[in-house]
This record gives sequence, structure tokens and C-alpha cells, in this order.
Amino acid sequence: MEVSIAHSARLLSQANNIVITTHVHPDGDALGSLLALNEYLAAQGKQVRMLLDDEVPRAFTFLSNWNKIERPDDSEYQADLLVVLDASDLARIGKVKDAVKAPILNLDHHISNLMFADYCYIDSRAAATGEIIVELLAEVKADITADMATALFTAIATDCGFFRFANTTAATLQYASNLVSLGAKPHIISEQLDTKPLAVVMALPKVLETLEVFDCGQQGQIATLTLYQELLAGLSDDTDGFINYPRNIEGVEIAILFKEADNNTIRVSLRSKAVDVSRIALSFGGGGHARAAGCTVTAPLTKAKRLVLEAAKKQLLSGSKPA
Amino acid sequence: MEVSIAHSARLLSQANNIVITTHVHPDGDALGSLLALNEYLAAQGKQVRMLLDDEVPRAFTFLSNWNKIERPDDSEYQADLLVVLDASDLARIGKVKDAVKAPILNLDHHISNLMFADYCYIDSRAAATGEIIVELLAEVKADITADMATALFTAIATDCGFFRFANTTAATLQYASNLVSLGAKPHIISEQLDTKPLAVVMALPKVLETLEVFDCGQQGQIATLTLYQELLAGLSDDTDGFINYPRNIEGVEIAILFKEADNNTIRVSLRSKAVDVSRIALSFGGGGHARAAGCTVTAPLTKAKRLVLEAAKKQLLSGSKPA
Repeated sequence: MEVSIAHSARLLSQANNIVITTHVHPDGDALGSLLALNEYLAAQGKQVRMLLDDEVPRAFTFLSNWNKIERPDDSEYQADLLVVLDASDLARIGKVKDAVKAPILNLDHHISNLMFADYCYIDSRAAATGEIIVELLAEVKADITADMATALFTAIATDCGFFRFANTTAATLQYASNLVSLGAKPHIISEQLDTKPLAVVMALPKVLETLEVFDCGQQGQIATLTLYQELLAGLSDDTDGFINYPRNIEGVEIAILFKEADNNTIRVSLRSKAVDVSRIALSFGGGGHARAAGCTVTAPLTKAKRLVLEAAKKQLLSGSKPA
Repeated sequence: MEVSIAHSARLLSQANNIVITTHVHPDGDALGSLLALNEYLAAQGKQVRMLLDDEVPRAFTFLSNWNKIERPDDSEYQADLLVVLDASDLARIGKVKDAVKAPILNLDHHISNLMFADYCYIDSRAAATGEIIVELLAEVKADITADMATALFTAIATDCGFFRFANTTAATLQYASNLVSLGAKPHIISEQLDTKPLAVVMALPKVLETLEVFDCGQQGQIATLTLYQELLAGLSDDTDGFINYPRNIEGVEIAILFKEADNNTIRVSLRSKAVDVSRIALSFGGGGHARAAGCTVTAPLTKAKRLVLEAAKKQLLSGSKPA
């Protein structure tokens, strides 16, 4: 059932033994929301445990208490309530799904949320689940420590591209302002998030060598980058930023990043300035937003590129803009 | 003399014929502040004229009325008041200094301000002169149009690195939030600011080939990039972002960008995570802030690099941190 923020707060208040979790491949919003809520619940004297079926990426190990996040083993965990943060689909929490038998409260901001939980508070206007946690903490008049403010600023800032994406609202910036008053330091947080291993910076020239630009006349250009298997191997998860290079080129309307996961699996990221690229992603079984979408194509690289480029050109020439 | 915001507002109110200007090599703060103040004064029925002794960089031509900014010719311009925005030194406004004979009101946020004006409102805690304009417009209860909000958001966002720099305060984010309520669109503004000519993106691999990393043990590393004359020629002014590549490498404490302006003139940009690099810049006759500074060394490239690197190593090993 759908619940309000006040109802969500009551559920937390009534439970004594709480497990909180978030999605695999956790990002700043997932981890920041998890850590801030954990600190609040622990301060209320709750028995609270953070479970995550994945590693915490090194970029986020500046957040306090990240090392208290546990990976579930095969045992069963007792709890009165399982809180699922920033996940739109139960499959996204991996093994935690089977490890905890308890009613589920889901706090999330994805428009694609499947309403899988017993109690759902889904606000798709929020730029981040971090915004929902801020609202929840305001509802219960929680004391927000500097650590919590840092975690929540990280949650919000990472999900709105440090206030650059279209989901950035007046409320987003208002919350960020309050969190800075409470001790979040934007320059320290951004420094931590922007730090890259030398290998990633050194790989950039090789990645940029693969830049291809396709002119579609008045409709603008399509620019692509290709991460071949050999290159990908050395980069681990630090490939997200690459798509900004083709995206930021003057005249480029659609940017595409092809990642050759293996000989027959190509992960495709799409970005646009106005054209609705979620339709391109959807046509290959993927999804996303109008200006940022993705899909996986089961085909060799050359074929996958040809298919996606054809679809992108068609979409660009049709001039279909998001509402 | 130093004046208050209220006094500044009175000076504007009492003048009928106003020239407003800003510094050469104008940035987003200079131009956004100029255009927003111009629109307010024009709406008050003032005779107002924007003079700038420089071109408006193409990146800012998405701001409304940028094309009403005039370059001064050799004639004299009549005015009751000359408003100088975002300039800490009269020399920074170039020919406008001689073209307008009128009392000067200076609104600025640089701590290095020389107090050259008849009336000075200098707030060095403001992240941008745009923040001062926001306060001024609040003082006079001005109607802020969407165009003015866009100009002021651009002013503030560019001077605090889109809320990433240490000058970003709770007030900075609060003002940004209000400006979004008034019609500024962060994703449109950032898209305009991040757009780069294809040539700049294509130059990046060549620039990154010059990356050198010097290990200073426990104190961290120094990483440098070098823009040789041949490369610089094709890049015009779009070289500012390059220093972030060495700066963002894991373990790097000091990042240095050397730009070979000519055979005997090397412009040096310095960035750090904690070490006070303004001291290095000062020792070569330059200046700046603790974590971002610059200087020009009159020497051939090889010698300039050796001298600056020696100074940087000394500073790093001394462990001197800013207050």
C-alpha cells in the first residue's frame, strides 16, 4: 500500500529490530541514504543493521560508518521491518530479499518503481532518495549530525550531477543549503567523488581515440565512444564519466557509449540534449529517462553499434522531443 | 569609502544615467551580474549602458541581452555613476576607466580588492558578485525575471564551480534555490557552460600525453600537464578545465598546468587539496587562493618547469597548510 511520510515515520518508530538495505551497484544516493537513516535509527536506540549484497565502492569510503555495512551470508536475519532504499524492484536488493523475512517499507524516487513493498513511499519528483530521507528526518524532528548531513548531501548531489541535471529543483538546492548549515562541506565531498585512479585518467586518451561523430544535418550530430574489452578490463567501475565527452561537444544532440562487456554483450549508454533517448533504449529492452537511458544489446560489437546507431538516427530525424 | 548594500541601492536610485561595466576576460560571474543589474536598472526607467573592453565569450551568448553589451570606442561617455562589477582593481576594466568620467560604485567579492572606488561594497565571504547582486535586488524588492534569474544563477554557479568549491556556503545554495524558483534552469545553464568545441575534446589526448607525476612520499604526489605553444594555438580560451585531470588523480596533492604562451613566457596554474599553493604563486610574483593560485614565469619552458616544481616540492614537504 502507498503510505505517507508520517506513516513511514510511524512504522520506523513502532519497529525495534530493523534491517535497512539498498540496491546492488550502490551509488551515492543509495549509500548516503542508507548511512543517514542508520545513524538516525541507532540514535533512537533501535536494533538496526545495514545489509548490502555488494561491495561499497572505494569512492564512498569517506562516509562515516560505511564499514558497518554488512554483506548478507546465507543465514536468516530476524527483523520487525525491512527498509528498502532507492530500489524500484525487489530483485535490485539481491540476496537480502531472501535473508530477511519481514514486512517491507520502500522509500524510493524512481518513476519506474514496481510498488513491490508492503508499504511504499515513492516520490518521483524527488531528485534523490536522499531528499525523501531529509523529509522523513524533518517529519520526526531528528537531530541531524554533520556525518548525516555529509551522507545526505552526497546522496542528493550524486543523483542530480551536482545540481546540473534536469531533476534539480528549488527544493533540491534548499535541502543542500540546509545540509551545509548542518556541517556538510561541498568541496570535501566533491573532491572525494571526483578522485580517480591514475589508470582511469591515463586511459582517457585511448578512449577518446574511439570518438566518432555522425552528422545528421540540421538535427545535429550523434557522437559515440567505444570501450573495447581490453580497455574495460583495467577500468573497473570508473567508466560512467566518459559519456560526458561526446555529450559536451558543440552540435552533438545524442551521445552514445558502447561498452564491450564480452564478445556478444554490449552495454549501451545514451544521453541527449532534447531528443527522447529512452525510446531508443526501450526498443532494445532497456529503459531510463528522456535525456539519459541505457540498454544491453546481445550481439557482437560491430552489429550492436550499427543497430543502435540506426535507431538513434531515426529517432533524431523524427525530431521526437520528450514532453 | 565603504558603503552598505542599502547605500549602494540609494546611489543607483539617485542616478539617472548609469554605465555598468566589468572586468576584461569576463567570466560567468562578471557577465551574469552585469546583465541582471542592467535589466533591473532598465526596468526602473534608467538610462543604462553596458560597456566592456573585451569580447563576450561564446559560452555566455545564451544569456539574454548579451549582444547589448558595447565595446567602448575612444569617445567619452556621459554618466552620473559608473558601476564596476566583480573587479578588484581599476586596471581590470581596461579602456572603460578613461571613457567614463563619473563617481564609481564598486560591487565585488575579491578579498584582494584595492578599494579603488568612490563607493565600495566588498563582501569577500560571497562566493560570487552574483550573490551581492541578489542581495541588492532583495534590498530594493526588485521583480526578478526568469532572464535575470538565469543570469544570476550562471554568475553564482560559475564562480563556485557549480557548488563544488570551498567558497560554496549555505547562502550560496539558498540563493541558487530561490533563483530556480524564479525560473533559472540548472540543466540548461550547465549544458550551455559545459559545451566545448570538437577541437578542444580532440586535443585532450595530446594534452594528457604530457602528464607527469612526481612522488613526494608520504606527502603525496605532484602532477603536471604542459600545453605547448602549438597546442595552445588551437584552443583559444578553453584551457581552464585541463588542470582538473591531474588534480583529480588519487594521491595527487598539488596539480600544475604549464601554458607556454611564448618561448619565454610560461603561465602557471596551481591547484591543491590542502597545501597552500598561493605561496608558491606569490614567490613568482603571482597570487590567488590557498587551493587555487597562478603566476607567470618569464623563462623558457624547461627552466620555468624546473623552478616551479622545485618550489612546489619544497612547499609540499614543508607541509604548510592554509589556515
